[in-house]
Amino acid sequence: MTKVVALMSMSLDGYVADLEDGVDEVFDWYFAGDVDVPTTKPDFTFHVSAASAEHLRALMGEVGAMLTGRRTSDRASAWGGQHPFGVPAFVVTHEVPEEWSDSDSTVHFVTDGLESAVAQAKAAAGDKIVGMHGADTIRECLDTGLLDEIRIDLVPLLLGSGIRLFDRLENAPVTLGNPTVVEGVGVTHLSYPVIPR
Amino acid sequence: MTKVVALMSMSLDGYVADLEDGVDEVFDWYFAGDVDVPTTKPDFTFHVSAASAEHLRALMGEVGAMLTGRRTSDRASAWGGQHPFGVPAFVVTHEVPEEWSDSDSTVHFVTDGLESAVAQAKAAAGDKIVGMHGADTIRECLDTGLLDEIRIDLVPLLLGSGIRLFDRLENAPVTLGNPTVVEGVGVTHLSYPVIPR
Repeated sequence: MTKVVALMSMSLDGYVADLEDGVDEVFDWYFAGDVDVPTTKPDFTFHVSAASAEHLRALMGEVGAMLTGRRTSDRASAWGGQHPFGVPAFVVTHEVPEEWSDSDSTVHFVTDGLESAVAQAKAAAGDKIVGMHGADTIRECLDTGLLDEIRIDLVPLLLGSGIRLFDRLENAPVTLGNPTVVEGVGVTHLSYPVIPR
Repeated sequence: MTKVVALMSMSLDGYVADLEDGVDEVFDWYFAGDVDVPTTKPDFTFHVSAASAEHLRALMGEVGAMLTGRRTSDRASAWGGQHPFGVPAFVVTHEVPEEWSDSDSTVHFVTDGLESAVAQAKAAAGDKIVGMHGADTIRECLDTGLLDEIRIDLVPLLLGSGIRLFDRLENAPVTLGNPTVVEGVGVTHLSYPVIPR
């Protein structure tokens, strides 16, 4: 079964972005080391600790498709039509942005709902996983039982305010399994299986 | 220097108790293993994984005094006058509870403020650490720069609602150092140094 896996950097107090939707603080770890991890974008290379580099390379090998909400896509300008992981990306939205309506890019805007987007992303991922970004999209997937794993890049920071990853869950409590742990620098990578109800 | 160290079990979504102040869910890990960790109370023994047992035993050897808020103390009925770790406990309160006003127990109610309670607990701890329980007390110590470390027993659970450990911080963001990590069963022990401003 193709797994749907949430991928988010989060502060210890649960924030994935500050009040202005800024992610610099929680993404600091991507540039806190001296091991280069290139992506398909020449100008988009991570610089991380050796442990995080190994973790990221393994992740990029695992992901067969990405799924995000519209806000995440907009903030990244739809990755210029090609997600840095080099895989098809599916964006849940109400309307296809005009600039991408005629595009033959590998970023696909899905207007018939999350369930359809998940199904399309799974089909594209094949025997790899679907990676998911975006707090609202992840929450909706949790609420509807569509999420198989939560991978948190836990950042040693108390942001104090901002956008919480796990807010207003409809079907809490959600039981998770024991995480696998990778200790980076400026980040602890925690991968939790979601235990189905 | 005697360190002041917050000690709390917290769900991945940041809660230390449910809406009714219940802690069963976040304390589950204390009884999730088959290694006994006795305390000074014969009827108060933890049953944890081998890794958590080693972690708890080391912690109990490190703590020289405990500091808590009144709610934490009330919930535990002031530990019957003797904290299970076998060390003096200092409770920040506005008024000494009547039943303890004449007590010669090792639980001390401090009515002249948090700073005084911290000073008294540090004096009692000597070259050991002061352990601190209670979300409000920890937050106040963070806000006033009195906290040196945050040790979170991170529980694989999304509680969805309840009492948050890090809410309404006054002096955020707070930068933490890289944590030491101990992987238990039903818990990940994370110890973060607080980086002074």
